[in-house]
Amino acid sequence: MPELRRDPVVGRWVIISTERAKRPDQFGQAAAQNEDLGEGEKCPFCEGNESMTPPEITAIRHRGTRPNAPGWEVRVIPSISPLLQIEGSLDRHGHGMYDLMYARGAHEIIVESPKHIKEADLSKEQAIKSFNMILDRVQDLEKDKDIKYVLVFKNYGEAAGGGHIKHARTQVIGTPVNLKRVKEELAGCRVYYGHRERCLFCDMVKQELKAGKRVMAETKHFVALAAFASRFPFETWIIPKQHSCDFYKMEREKVPDLAEIIMTLSARMRKVIGDFPFNFVLHTAPFRRDAGKRGYWETIEHDYHWHFELLPILTRVAGFEWGSGFYINPLPPEDACKSVTEAKI
Amino acid sequence: MPELRRDPVVGRWVIISTERAKRPDQFGQAAAQNEDLGEGEKCPFCEGNESMTPPEITAIRHRGTRPNAPGWEVRVIPSISPLLQIEGSLDRHGHGMYDLMYARGAHEIIVESPKHIKEADLSKEQAIKSFNMILDRVQDLEKDKDIKYVLVFKNYGEAAGGGHIKHARTQVIGTPVNLKRVKEELAGCRVYYGHRERCLFCDMVKQELKAGKRVMAETKHFVALAAFASRFPFETWIIPKQHSCDFYKMEREKVPDLAEIIMTLSARMRKVIGDFPFNFVLHTAPFRRDAGKRGYWETIEHDYHWHFELLPILTRVAGFEWGSGFYINPLPPEDACKSVTEAKI
Repeated sequence: MPELRRDPVVGRWVIISTERAKRPDQFGQAAAQNEDLGEGEKCPFCEGNESMTPPEITAIRHRGTRPNAPGWEVRVIPSISPLLQIEGSLDRHGHGMYDLMYARGAHEIIVESPKHIKEADLSKEQAIKSFNMILDRVQDLEKDKDIKYVLVFKNYGEAAGGGHIKHARTQVIGTPVNLKRVKEELAGCRVYYGHRERCLFCDMVKQELKAGKRVMAETKHFVALAAFASRFPFETWIIPKQHSCDFYKMEREKVPDLAEIIMTLSARMRKVIGDFPFNFVLHTAPFRRDAGKRGYWETIEHDYHWHFELLPILTRVAGFEWGSGFYINPLPPEDACKSVTEAKI
Repeated sequence: MPELRRDPVVGRWVIISTERAKRPDQFGQAAAQNEDLGEGEKCPFCEGNESMTPPEITAIRHRGTRPNAPGWEVRVIPSISPLLQIEGSLDRHGHGMYDLMYARGAHEIIVESPKHIKEADLSKEQAIKSFNMILDRVQDLEKDKDIKYVLVFKNYGEAAGGGHIKHARTQVIGTPVNLKRVKEELAGCRVYYGHRERCLFCDMVKQELKAGKRVMAETKHFVALAAFASRFPFETWIIPKQHSCDFYKMEREKVPDLAEIIMTLSARMRKVIGDFPFNFVLHTAPFRRDAGKRGYWETIEHDYHWHFELLPILTRVAGFEWGSGFYINPLPPEDACKSVTEAKI
């Protein structure tokens, strides 16, 4: 079973994922990389190949079709090589000065089209179905009391860890501990709220809409901002205009608007930089915050604001970043924004 | 002048490095990658090509040779595209809710051989000269009162951000602010010391030497450990056995021992995984800690312990890591250690 180990110095958790194990001497070999499916290779996510995956968790299906057979529009399956497993107990324990536990949780794949198409080729209707399914899955996982957080993300392209199979899909991981990155955001938002009694993200949206020069796209309910301190060229945050800390409580009538801003933004970006590798992650408030209401949780409903981060992977992270926690970005976000908003789609 | 911008949510600093600027539409183009120098390309770090770099800061030179001419063994130059600049003022200021300052600091390259050879081909004598020069440079930068921290690091190989020119070198960056990653370590060590009145790293070295199964290499004064919660396959920490928070105060007679453990370790690792891309970073205590002696600084001389981190870049960081701050490592450190210690060199 995969193990979760805690770094004793900074408290960072690491998943030792033996499900994906290789022999030590295999790490030095560069894998041959196809642009998409290799010759004779079948895509496990395509309609007709349902038997290549574990049994489906749920799906949007045409009337009268059976599970794990053709006839679906969006299909949710457990990951073939799960980072965390739904069975077993956490059994958090010590090992001398170290801490570890078993990697209990959930790892699902939302396949966003029955056809072998990439994210950029999804229709708006299909993107809406997919976002609705993401909401369904997060709402469902919220009911599992052992899951403290659900991370929704996409890896697209080899450089972004997306593998070589270009079939549109989103990953959903439910974790038994809260996430370091999210806790850092919660702490920052709480400090800001403590000074001003206002939400940091709400203030940022207000300031950015007024300044204009980092607004990548805007719809009725959402705004996409080139982050002021972007780590990566073209880094963009998609933020709901209305304050809310919980993604999973989003009103369903806003889903088409969310699909629209993301599709517009990414179509414009592809005009400027072509078909780019990216990671796309959701940051939302942790689920379990009723006990005690101290620390992060005290004012979380007022001070935290859910959002997506779109991180194009066009530069490399190197020794300076690993060593310092600083990032080096060779493209001012204002320049990225200008080029994207001027792109004709 | 490059700008340092602070993320308003998590406080992470980003260098917007216009010295390395490209047009926005150039980020989509994959650069042609040579394994080393391209045809007709000259290496700026080789003896005889001194005029290709800014004037040298210092060098270990043969008697009677002039600066910026052949006749050296180790040569220190300012970076050709510096991330931080030695002139100017910080001018830390606000911009609405944002914080920024100018990127004042130092960025030097220590060229470790006059010959065009890579790290793996350095002689032990040459590696000793190089480590002595690193100590010289950190000691010198410590005297600049505007520099709070010095990060020493190596990027080797394209995947680790090392570029395509394989000429052995180390980078030294002096920063005007303390580093997020180091502050996280300081905080963790201080909490541990608060509980136990012992240094976390000293305890870790003791526990690991007893257990044995994560000891990658050992010399009289140093130990190399496969980190218990390794983020990356073959991640290794090189730790001095004697407690000290300041690398720059290391006794010079220990330098040959430091060169030896690093050369032994990396030769063994190359036996297992071949010529591997890596980042190598020094973590040591910040310089300016006399004012107040509060917070991190209160017990820093007792609770913090300098060390190097060797991070082989054999896997990709993807959406899960960016989103969560968790890492996924497919190779248990005990297996990495077994393969490396069994390698015959």
